[in-house]
Amino acid sequence: MIIVLKNGTTPEQLREFSDRLSSQYQVQVNVWRGTQSTVLGLLGDTHTIDIESVEANEIVESVKRVQEPYKKANRAFHPNDTVIPVGDAKIGDGSLQLIAGPCSVESEEQIVEIARRVKASGATFLRGGAFKPRTSPYAFQGLREEGLRLLLEAKRATGLPIVTEIMSVSHIDLFRDVDVIQIGARNMQNFELLKEVGKLDKPILLKRGLANTIEETLMSAEYIMSSGNEKVILCERGIRTFETYTRNTLDISAIPVFKKLSHLPVIVDPSHASGIAWMVEPLSMAALAAGADGLIIEVHNDPQHARSDGAQSITPARFDALARKLFTLHRAVRG
Amino acid sequence: MIIVLKNGTTPEQLREFSDRLSSQYQVQVNVWRGTQSTVLGLLGDTHTIDIESVEANEIVESVKRVQEPYKKANRAFHPNDTVIPVGDAKIGDGSLQLIAGPCSVESEEQIVEIARRVKASGATFLRGGAFKPRTSPYAFQGLREEGLRLLLEAKRATGLPIVTEIMSVSHIDLFRDVDVIQIGARNMQNFELLKEVGKLDKPILLKRGLANTIEETLMSAEYIMSSGNEKVILCERGIRTFETYTRNTLDISAIPVFKKLSHLPVIVDPSHASGIAWMVEPLSMAALAAGADGLIIEVHNDPQHARSDGAQSITPARFDALARKLFTLHRAVRG
Amino acid sequence: MIIVLKNGTTPEQLREFSDRLSSQYQVQVNVWRGTQSTVLGLLGDTHTIDIESVEANEIVESVKRVQEPYKKANRAFHPNDTVIPVGDAKIGDGSLQLIAGPCSVESEEQIVEIARRVKASGATFLRGGAFKPRTSPYAFQGLREEGLRLLLEAKRATGLPIVTEIMSVSHIDLFRDVDVIQIGARNMQNFELLKEVGKLDKPILLKRGLANTIEETLMSAEYIMSSGNEKVILCERGIRTFETYTRNTLDISAIPVFKKLSHLPVIVDPSHASGIAWMVEPLSMAALAAGADGLIIEVHNDPQHARSDGAQSITPARFDALARKLFTLHRAVRG
Amino acid sequence: MIIVLKNGTTPEQLREFSDRLSSQYQVQVNVWRGTQSTVLGLLGDTHTIDIESVEANEIVESVKRVQEPYKKANRAFHPNDTVIPVGDAKIGDGSLQLIAGPCSVESEEQIVEIARRVKASGATFLRGGAFKPRTSPYAFQGLREEGLRLLLEAKRATGLPIVTEIMSVSHIDLFRDVDVIQIGARNMQNFELLKEVGKLDKPILLKRGLANTIEETLMSAEYIMSSGNEKVILCERGIRTFETYTRNTLDISAIPVFKKLSHLPVIVDPSHASGIAWMVEPLSMAALAAGADGLIIEVHNDPQHARSDGAQSITPARFDALARKLFTLHRAVRG
Repeated sequence: MIIVLKNGTTPEQLREFSDRLSSQYQVQVNVWRGTQSTVLGLLGDTHTIDIESVEANEIVESVKRVQEPYKKANRAFHPNDTVIPVGDAKIGDGSLQLIAGPCSVESEEQIVEIARRVKASGATFLRGGAFKPRTSPYAFQGLREEGLRLLLEAKRATGLPIVTEIMSVSHIDLFRDVDVIQIGARNMQNFELLKEVGKLDKPILLKRGLANTIEETLMSAEYIMSSGNEKVILCERGIRTFETYTRNTLDISAIPVFKKLSHLPVIVDPSHASGIAWMVEPLSMAALAAGADGLIIEVHNDPQHARSDGAQSITPARFDALARKLFTLHRAVRG
Repeated sequence: MIIVLKNGTTPEQLREFSDRLSSQYQVQVNVWRGTQSTVLGLLGDTHTIDIESVEANEIVESVKRVQEPYKKANRAFHPNDTVIPVGDAKIGDGSLQLIAGPCSVESEEQIVEIARRVKASGATFLRGGAFKPRTSPYAFQGLREEGLRLLLEAKRATGLPIVTEIMSVSHIDLFRDVDVIQIGARNMQNFELLKEVGKLDKPILLKRGLANTIEETLMSAEYIMSSGNEKVILCERGIRTFETYTRNTLDISAIPVFKKLSHLPVIVDPSHASGIAWMVEPLSMAALAAGADGLIIEVHNDPQHARSDGAQSITPARFDALARKLFTLHRAVRG
Repeated sequence: MIIVLKNGTTPEQLREFSDRLSSQYQVQVNVWRGTQSTVLGLLGDTHTIDIESVEANEIVESVKRVQEPYKKANRAFHPNDTVIPVGDAKIGDGSLQLIAGPCSVESEEQIVEIARRVKASGATFLRGGAFKPRTSPYAFQGLREEGLRLLLEAKRATGLPIVTEIMSVSHIDLFRDVDVIQIGARNMQNFELLKEVGKLDKPILLKRGLANTIEETLMSAEYIMSSGNEKVILCERGIRTFETYTRNTLDISAIPVFKKLSHLPVIVDPSHASGIAWMVEPLSMAALAAGADGLIIEVHNDPQHARSDGAQSITPARFDALARKLFTLHRAVRG
Repeated sequence: MIIVLKNGTTPEQLREFSDRLSSQYQVQVNVWRGTQSTVLGLLGDTHTIDIESVEANEIVESVKRVQEPYKKANRAFHPNDTVIPVGDAKIGDGSLQLIAGPCSVESEEQIVEIARRVKASGATFLRGGAFKPRTSPYAFQGLREEGLRLLLEAKRATGLPIVTEIMSVSHIDLFRDVDVIQIGARNMQNFELLKEVGKLDKPILLKRGLANTIEETLMSAEYIMSSGNEKVILCERGIRTFETYTRNTLDISAIPVFKKLSHLPVIVDPSHASGIAWMVEPLSMAALAAGADGLIIEVHNDPQHARSDGAQSITPARFDALARKLFTLHRAVRG
């Protein structure tokens, strides 16, 4: 950590500040005094230093981190890719993982039918929303407990492990049989929830928040990992920008950046990124070409009667055609 | 609601779609058929219509709301300003409410001292964080239950009602003696939490999310209100933009827009909006001139030793000088 | 165009407004009167209607376009892809066009050497900056006229057609021998410049502005096309967002959206989108998989001594390896 | 300037790099070698250093400026406020400057009438567009030369100095009698135009670009100033964000930040910032309370028949009421 001090800092102020830093954080403080400014260099384990409290000091002009503020999620400390096994699937081992299913679970017939269809096309996981975060209190909020039960029925019928979203710490017990728990974009900084899922021994699919940086996403992964659960899957699902044609803007760059900064697997959600069914194909292809370990895609057997997110869902037939293209692309770029 | 259909829609498709809309939502559907396109106009109570499910229909080109999707928070249905009384204070009645205090409660001595100082300067509420949402799991997370206890001590000592943030549905019982519960920006779309505080009979200070629109903020207010609690105070605290000089960008326009669209009181947080202590004064002045009902300001007796957010906290002496200016301005613009 | 009127509009106001619209724009105005609101539907060629002037009317609540405001760039009116031939290359015909070269032309030796190297790797165009838009007046501003002369030398030496940026209407005569004129992102809405290059018979590579929507980009293409020059190549080069790891955020979605809305070819600039050399490869792969017609890539034989943009330039050797991967991918996805 | 080197940098690489920096830029290079990383501190006049070229070096991890990259616009080098006299008005001396007039000049009658009305209400400048930057080539492009002539008529009739926008270097001679030349937001980084107006002896009103940072705006001011013209007036007019209710988001924080970083006067354009007539009043009040030296406001005698920007123009009567409020506020906050 590099700390630039203000002009006019007295030697006494410098000494007091420097002593406080070394006692408070067990770092070594090096001073470099130029003619115009004084710079401090902090050596040691600086990731626990509260940058805001340093900035608050009246003699501090600015602060710059040299090390990243996350450690367990950091590739520098874990050079090898993390591979997360779930049933027969291995997320992060170079294979292509396809997570598919409806936005909301609506009925046993619906979820089992979709599960069968997507499995036949090569999907390795079934997704489906039981608890649904909706902008409006008047919109369908999901079948909740009943939705979880139906997902488990579909798992029994097809063998596909299931991925579904948790919305509250008070629901954790309900998720004991879920294979992968999803933290939605709106809860990416619900830190109390992150701590709780960090106590589980279960993979967590962590969606990047709409307005969260790559670093903040890794810090939320760090919350889960530092609570004990290192099975975190990162998910890029589009960020909020000024562009209005798409619902969000898929940050394709986040894929290689997550891969460089972290050892965790990365999947992409083209359905929520665009909000538009016909865009799922080109965005899926792009994500795979950019290095994603998998995709999470909304598939509905009857999109126009879907109880949520119909506009971005594709039919099982289109998913089948897309999956073929994706496996071809996967062979071409990873083969 | 106006629905533009795609070219080539058949009369049968139109009839089927129109019938479904009128049966599902109890609205009246009017058809206007041009030479190039067909437009449907929906009359009635359209705020429960799920716009996404309408957009998902294959014959739909685009959808445009004419009415806002919120009702209880909507000024059109409640023309008079909502006034929320808390102890002696009335939020939203034209008076200037100053909510002041430290980012984090750190000790009884600290919080009581700050409470005394800000009250002497004209503050009408004491703020202080007990449960702290921090980007890093390694940063100070607040004194938690003990922090709430100390806030209540400070209330006893000064009479100031207290405002403090809740982070989890599982903590609700701990907040029974808190005067105003704050929902932080990162939890603005934690819908399960919104529903729970919606069951309380206690004012809720709802902070706008970093990347949430004005309409989404009102929809989150609607969650609380439709659960039964109509005492919602909106809070603008800066949005995320490309500008890096300030931590966030205070959306000053949100003040008059909230006031136009809704009857709820609006307060502004200049401390988090900028993240910079010297900017608290000009932003507070601007917010008041733009029509805010109050300000929530971070005040710390020793900012450089604060355990969080020191860089944006002002001292009690500076708060005192600022309060004088604000009361002068308030008389000039509202007098 | 759909115009929603305010409640309380009188029949006289409605008639006056309706008459003015039909006389001013030669459109047919249809009125649909509901119990709560009145809606006007405008039929005919509405793309010349000034939406702002309609919105300014005191009886207007809101306005919604049904048709896009651009015509010559619109795929609805030109269903077939535009193919732009330049020398032996055809941009937009399904082939992969690689435009490569240094950020700035620095010397004859440099530009000829790079041209030879990139041509050998499969590049079909040479790029190089002669007039350089730099944020700082103290930064290298390009070799200007001399830079253009050196580019033409490199063209003579290799046969590669050249692409270079124009910064001012006063320089147009200097660009008579340039094969493709680039309009930079910062000049995308320099409308006087767009009109001037619209009078030339020469392909124009139009870069999307940092903060411009897809629609605005197409409107700038429309400026060039409506002045007479229909040879416009669209270029996505990253937009400005809150994310700070990359210089800009590549909007990968813009590729399929441009292709859907318009018939013009689309190329992508991964170098400026990220600002980081190691990211050029994954972003190029993604862009091609998403449907781009080509890529414009910064290549420098000595990036760390480059006079501009070294941080995002790759060496000829890396370009060669990347080109191989891209041609493999191109065969896999388009073959 | 602080340069953090990558781990593994050899002493030879360090020496070569350090020597190159000190010879190329005449700065003194100090080396501080920690156990984990090596940091260089550059002393001297670093504002001419091309940060990108430094970042391009393979041994460089990251670079951080300590000094701002602008000098003539920098308050550190010019502590006193710049005051720009135009006729009787003094911009930047603590007085309140009101620049008012229509978006577009439409006729002599129109512009003279509006000039008379706004002058009577206290306006000190007349604004009016002759050359109009419009998103669509089919929208009214302004009366151009004739518009300038009419503005000068209005000046003759009222004595008000005029402010109007230039769009091209080729028009400079036409602007010789204009009092203040405006550079529009879309041309803020039209560097060739900045250099040309930098050669004039005439105040330049420089509007911040829609997606430009505060620092970039000051760099554009630096372009003008380093070309010889130090009479630059900065103008905040709203930035592009995800919020859609307002056309842009007024960055109220930019006012105090510009004032802190620079000595140049700052005015605010509430009309373009919001795009909505009823918001002009609260935003004007906020801007003045935040420290702006003046406001530029669109006033039209018949907004609904205006040929551009009618939706954001206020009538002379509303301008008169607003001006009264502003002068009252000005006395209260500056008196």
